[in-house]
Amino acid sequence: MVQIIGWGHTRFGKLAEGLEELIVQAGGEALAHSGVAPGDVDAIFVGHFNGGMVPEGFPSSLALSIHDDLRFTPAARLENACASGSAAVYAARDAIESGRAKVALVIGVEKMTHLPTAEVARGLGHAAYQPEEAGLSFPQVFAMFARAYFDRYGDHARTLAEIAAKNHANAMANPLAHLHKALPVEFCEVASEKNPVVADPLKVTDCSLVSDGAAALVMAADDVAASAPRAVRFRAAVQVNDFLPMSRRDPLAFEGPARAMRTAIAEAGLTLDDIDLAEVHDCFTIAELLVYEAMGLAEPGQGARALEEGIVRPGGALPVNMSGGLKAKGHPVGATGVSMHVLVARQVLGEAGEMQVAGAEHGLVFNMGGSGVANYASVLEPAR
Amino acid sequence: MVQIIGWGHTRFGKLAEGLEELIVQAGGEALAHSGVAPGDVDAIFVGHFNGGMVPEGFPSSLALSIHDDLRFTPAARLENACASGSAAVYAARDAIESGRAKVALVIGVEKMTHLPTAEVARGLGHAAYQPEEAGLSFPQVFAMFARAYFDRYGDHARTLAEIAAKNHANAMANPLAHLHKALPVEFCEVASEKNPVVADPLKVTDCSLVSDGAAALVMAADDVAASAPRAVRFRAAVQVNDFLPMSRRDPLAFEGPARAMRTAIAEAGLTLDDIDLAEVHDCFTIAELLVYEAMGLAEPGQGARALEEGIVRPGGALPVNMSGGLKAKGHPVGATGVSMHVLVARQVLGEAGEMQVAGAEHGLVFNMGGSGVANYASVLEPAR
Repeated sequence: MVQIIGWGHTRFGKLAEGLEELIVQAGGEALAHSGVAPGDVDAIFVGHFNGGMVPEGFPSSLALSIHDDLRFTPAARLENACASGSAAVYAARDAIESGRAKVALVIGVEKMTHLPTAEVARGLGHAAYQPEEAGLSFPQVFAMFARAYFDRYGDHARTLAEIAAKNHANAMANPLAHLHKALPVEFCEVASEKNPVVADPLKVTDCSLVSDGAAALVMAADDVAASAPRAVRFRAAVQVNDFLPMSRRDPLAFEGPARAMRTAIAEAGLTLDDIDLAEVHDCFTIAELLVYEAMGLAEPGQGARALEEGIVRPGGALPVNMSGGLKAKGHPVGATGVSMHVLVARQVLGEAGEMQVAGAEHGLVFNMGGSGVANYASVLEPAR
Repeated sequence: MVQIIGWGHTRFGKLAEGLEELIVQAGGEALAHSGVAPGDVDAIFVGHFNGGMVPEGFPSSLALSIHDDLRFTPAARLENACASGSAAVYAARDAIESGRAKVALVIGVEKMTHLPTAEVARGLGHAAYQPEEAGLSFPQVFAMFARAYFDRYGDHARTLAEIAAKNHANAMANPLAHLHKALPVEFCEVASEKNPVVADPLKVTDCSLVSDGAAALVMAADDVAASAPRAVRFRAAVQVNDFLPMSRRDPLAFEGPARAMRTAIAEAGLTLDDIDLAEVHDCFTIAELLVYEAMGLAEPGQGARALEEGIVRPGGALPVNMSGGLKAKGHPVGATGVSMHVLVARQVLGEAGEMQVAGAEHGLVFNMGGSGVANYASVLEPAR
């Protein structure tokens, strides 16, 4: 078994720090939090997308800057677009379960806000299938998902606005979030000068934030974790990749996400009713809506019910994105998957501060690269 | 234990194929070679540097294009600069040893020749430590190594020329090599119009080639490998990362490479005398010279002896880079580490064609990212 025994998390937002400083801050904080001495780290995994947004094309060894005792520690970078952070988490799982590592340090990081929006869009566009989608930005890709959804199930601009407003409200309780600004549903629903259309029907409030930030985890084998001050275990961890070209996938079926989440919950020996909260990949509000349906909270086309019935809201049966999600917590892409694991680990230990879901025992992470291409679903629970 | 049960390898060179086609060719060939059905692949690892040289910033799922039955198979990209290929190999080892995968498909790939030389240099330059080395090209970095070596141990331009000539001659026996052109030592030694200085004292013949290409491995757990037509096992596999900034490393000590190779040989329960051949990272001729010393073939400053005494030449006690090495086989950076494992696997099974080292039983791979930053050393032997 693999356990999470410590974490670090910079604030997400427009930060002065560069990539190396973010790595060092989050990684150093995670080591201190776990009580593990740097010299006891057996392997390092850095989750980082890059996409040309920063010149650091070989960031793995930057993590050795955290402490001199990390010199000679194996380090590698994992990339799976916006799921690069979870790719690093899962590589650490393999390293520990294989017996190669007793302790692994995982750091997810991205630096984006120094670039003009068009260059960020171009950077992220490198995660699309180039022969067919090179001209599309990710807002355009998810706008296609939204249009397909509206065409099949009716106009759901209001539902998307409800998701945006929920996540903005949730972020008020997360001191690490990029944006602390509660937005009324009406503001999110109606296009305006302050909330213009980005790619019809998606408006600014339907899109996640361009952020800088890093998050880190210390993960360990059972024997090391036994003496750690805190420990969270993976009850399940499932990765599913789908074809990269959108032309080879049914957008509304969201098959990769559905398979990942449903398999993870089944492998955990649980049902969705047993999950107390989820941090999911709301890169766009339409994605969160599709995730409700993919995880089985609602039938296809019925995701709005999860909001109407309060299920996914604070105090509901399965609060989603108590952190504010990518929408308001921010989305430094390589950091996101690690951040989600940090936040769910905090929740299941009752250490989530004002974000805390009372009595949370089983938490779900769903992190996605591309439009349902690289899909990671983890179920976390307290180890003791 | 983890075993290699099949491989694929495109020709290296200036190829018409794009990144996806290279992945599909090498990966498909490896699956066919192993006899494994695509539907039996449990995990895919793609080794790819990128550095902005191609727009495909999220290549992992391109491997699913090999066969429809690969849909939903977990895939991730590994990056560790010019050791990205070995990073993928080692991630596959972890996945298999952890029990998560019975069969893993590993593909290393790079596409470089479509770019002007200056843009390739800029792409590779993203593997340097940006705050201190952003203005340096890799030839300049290794020229500093060469100058430091010459300053301490005397002018070894002749030694470097011997290495270049050896590897060019070796490549004549490798049909997959980028360059089939034997070059006299004198041509390599003396700067000329046809062999100009790139970064003093390194000339064109001291530098590896800018190449396109892909290589692939099918790796499997013991029970699957037992019924495979061929099997090679890892007797040892060691990864060592060093600090990224050159200012924090003694270039001539080459500590990361030395630790990786010496630890691998020790963990294999062998001595250097037991190693029958090696494929090592001659990104520049000075690197191969330093590798001789780092692996213990010669004392510091005495690496030339390995050439003078014929040890590293065909028919010697430890032939190095029978494939032609990065120097003449070519160096599509993400493919290189996988290619090395393919070539050493072929050698220890007696399947290396005209490159074959008679009676080879134990082979060493040494793949390096940056100037001794990410270091991977594997010892391979026949599994049966």
